[in-house]
Amino acid sequence: MSDVFDVIVIGAGPAGENVVGRVTRGGLTAAVVEQDLAGGDCSYWACIPSKALLRPMELVAEVGRQPGLSVGPIDVPAVLARRDEAVSGYDDSGQVRWLESVHGTVIRGRGRIAGPRQVEVTAADGGKRLLTARHAVVLATGSTPVIPRVPGLAAADPWLTKDATAVKEVPARLIVMGGGVAACELAQALHALGAKETTLVVRKDRVLERTEPFAGEMVTASLREAGIDVRFNTTIEKVERPVPGSEVTVDLSDGTRLTADEIMVATGRDPGSADMGLPLIGLPDGAPVAVDDSMRATEVEAGWLYAVGDVNNRSMLTHMGKYQARIAGDVIVARVAGAPDDLPSMRDRADAMGSPQVIFTDPHVCAVGRTEERARRDGFNVRAVEYDIGLVTGAYLQADGYKGRAKMVVDEDRRVLLGVTFVGPGIADLLHGATIAVTAEVPLDDLWHAIPVFPAVSEIWLRLLEAYGL
Amino acid sequence: MSDVFDVIVIGAGPAGENVVGRVTRGGLTAAVVEQDLAGGDCSYWACIPSKALLRPMELVAEVGRQPGLSVGPIDVPAVLARRDEAVSGYDDSGQVRWLESVHGTVIRGRGRIAGPRQVEVTAADGGKRLLTARHAVVLATGSTPVIPRVPGLAAADPWLTKDATAVKEVPARLIVMGGGVAACELAQALHALGAKETTLVVRKDRVLERTEPFAGEMVTASLREAGIDVRFNTTIEKVERPVPGSEVTVDLSDGTRLTADEIMVATGRDPGSADMGLPLIGLPDGAPVAVDDSMRATEVEAGWLYAVGDVNNRSMLTHMGKYQARIAGDVIVARVAGAPDDLPSMRDRADAMGSPQVIFTDPHVCAVGRTEERARRDGFNVRAVEYDIGLVTGAYLQADGYKGRAKMVVDEDRRVLLGVTFVGPGIADLLHGATIAVTAEVPLDDLWHAIPVFPAVSEIWLRLLEAYGL
Repeated sequence: MSDVFDVIVIGAGPAGENVVGRVTRGGLTAAVVEQDLAGGDCSYWACIPSKALLRPMELVAEVGRQPGLSVGPIDVPAVLARRDEAVSGYDDSGQVRWLESVHGTVIRGRGRIAGPRQVEVTAADGGKRLLTARHAVVLATGSTPVIPRVPGLAAADPWLTKDATAVKEVPARLIVMGGGVAACELAQALHALGAKETTLVVRKDRVLERTEPFAGEMVTASLREAGIDVRFNTTIEKVERPVPGSEVTVDLSDGTRLTADEIMVATGRDPGSADMGLPLIGLPDGAPVAVDDSMRATEVEAGWLYAVGDVNNRSMLTHMGKYQARIAGDVIVARVAGAPDDLPSMRDRADAMGSPQVIFTDPHVCAVGRTEERARRDGFNVRAVEYDIGLVTGAYLQADGYKGRAKMVVDEDRRVLLGVTFVGPGIADLLHGATIAVTAEVPLDDLWHAIPVFPAVSEIWLRLLEAYGL
Repeated sequence: MSDVFDVIVIGAGPAGENVVGRVTRGGLTAAVVEQDLAGGDCSYWACIPSKALLRPMELVAEVGRQPGLSVGPIDVPAVLARRDEAVSGYDDSGQVRWLESVHGTVIRGRGRIAGPRQVEVTAADGGKRLLTARHAVVLATGSTPVIPRVPGLAAADPWLTKDATAVKEVPARLIVMGGGVAACELAQALHALGAKETTLVVRKDRVLERTEPFAGEMVTASLREAGIDVRFNTTIEKVERPVPGSEVTVDLSDGTRLTADEIMVATGRDPGSADMGLPLIGLPDGAPVAVDDSMRATEVEAGWLYAVGDVNNRSMLTHMGKYQARIAGDVIVARVAGAPDDLPSMRDRADAMGSPQVIFTDPHVCAVGRTEERARRDGFNVRAVEYDIGLVTGAYLQADGYKGRAKMVVDEDRRVLLGVTFVGPGIADLLHGATIAVTAEVPLDDLWHAIPVFPAVSEIWLRLLEAYGL
């Protein structure tokens, strides 16, 4: 095995894998360095297992809204077994096989930048190996969870989100620290799977603060309706777990003391750029790696460093990391070949417009583009329209008492959509139409001819456009 | 009540209602003549009740594909009660209130063209009344079921689709004649609700013949897996019901004889233009009324007649009828005002491109635009790409053993989509993105930046574009 490759990718998560796939498709050689499982957090500890844990809860809720049906209690071991299947039993041989099938070389160990185009790999046994890239090094190291500095928290052996997605025995009492996507999703999933006493401790006055305000309100209502104790404007001041493995006590800023079996921290993630050797090439340690729209690091001489996925902090979403990876891979191939490197597919347009995201709570929160607030802040001439999805016939037929809300944010100067948000049960796949409309800047006058089928929830599109005045 | 109105609409189904809404919004007076219930077949006898009957079956199937969940037997009376609620107990006062709220005048009776701009209304008691339109008459009379001339069929008191959607007691043995949308949907719904012995008798060699061939194959497989007896290339030669209300016997072309409690005819619909007085103005009786893209009848002098919805035979889909109604309404208002009548919203672009449709069987069949066959027939430079939706992670997480298939038909000369078909459980709302892409002719290079969220079924979009070579 040669120690020189055209491209060296550090991190074999979904983004890193996609870089390998694209550059080898373009005829280059590629090594990918991974210290953990090929496939990355998404495959084993994040999106995939969390969706596997959420889906039963979602279906139980849907059945509960359908007159004439009744569902038995969730068979938790069966759900956990399916989760184990979804994560391939935490075995990455399938991913390695795929990487090898596209002629990528998988190198196990911790990769660090050792100098221009140089990557040092430290194996599990401490052995070191120096790799050299002829053309490019791509950082695809993802992100790492932040553990807030709360007295006693670190010592109390808190769960991170990966402990929640890998749960083997659901704790009866659970405290969740955070108000973002992972906090809401996992609190809801674990509560449905047996964490009867679940408390969500939110530092701010709302959850899901990057979405339209009604999204957080609707998810909060749903969490509370399910029996989850949601506390806003509350911080955790002290944590104690006197006996390892026994219960944990938590003192809150409102003076109350909670007792639980586990405390889960879901308070955000840092880009995975710490201790990566970045100072050796003049970049700060632990900061996001700034990249241009071709994913090339802007502050590195000679343009050999790229960064895709969470580590560049553009979106921290698997699908966007993969998107960036396709761009980086294609751009590297073009630049090596001296071919045009600015084809329409070779620049990141989508992140700046507002990445599409679905939060798989019940209800789903689906959003793409800018919120109204952000659109105004960005200086657009904005008009926003909202509509109650429950008034749409297709939604009524989907569920008794369907609760949902939609909003579109229009750029009045160009009559295109800047952002769309849908909140409602079971509507994740409705988002993609909005993603097309926002990203391709489809004029409202064209959207008017894209007729939603009747009777489906999609009819909300017609109602929004009618409410706008078309 | 004056007998002169700016606009007279015949038929208060969804299309007629939308004409009234648009012309009165534009300041015109409007009467709408309805011999049956305001709201039309869709509201009481077609889309809405059929979806109400299909949804429980769909959810039971979804739960069956989710490890860890189990669902009890369907409570059929509860489902029928929800259906009754969905059709407002066959009471149209809500629809009448809406029509009156937009200042439409509802006139009960059978409307017929009596001459240029003249409509004669025959009330239930036989009384007649002549209405005159200052500007336009709009035919929105929908369509009527075709009963094939099979010996004994008419005398055997067959069910039409409206009898199936209005079912009060589900027959244990049911024969369904037809292979189209209504036949497949209602066979599957009624089978799930108790028609244990259901036979689908299909004259041709496939069901759903206007869709991509794999759609019909997948629905056939699903029907058969559920236990429905699907017989292709088979016609019904003779029907007998010797004792009214007792069982019916059916002789098939393959020599077998079936016995059932009911036989349902779902073999298509004729435009609702028979006995409408059309010969008085030079149009044939019972034929579709030919219209231009502003919905104005092309063969009528002075341009006062419009036709929207099933009666013009463009699409026979509720949402397309409503679309046409919005166009007709706006065009009439503009023409009366002497304002421009050719704004982008004032021409039917969508029907000719291939109307979007969802067939609410399990799996859903969702299609928009042209099938590959039609695109080739229409002379396009076609490339088609297919992908197995079950290979998409989001689908795997949606259901164990998810079976689905997607196809996109590309116009290679312009690199835009001519058609998209998705077949799979629970993906009705995925279609709207395709409807936007096809209708607005979004270039593939733009679709490439519309990133589907992970992990959702929407990821099929990425797989299709990758399979295409992007």
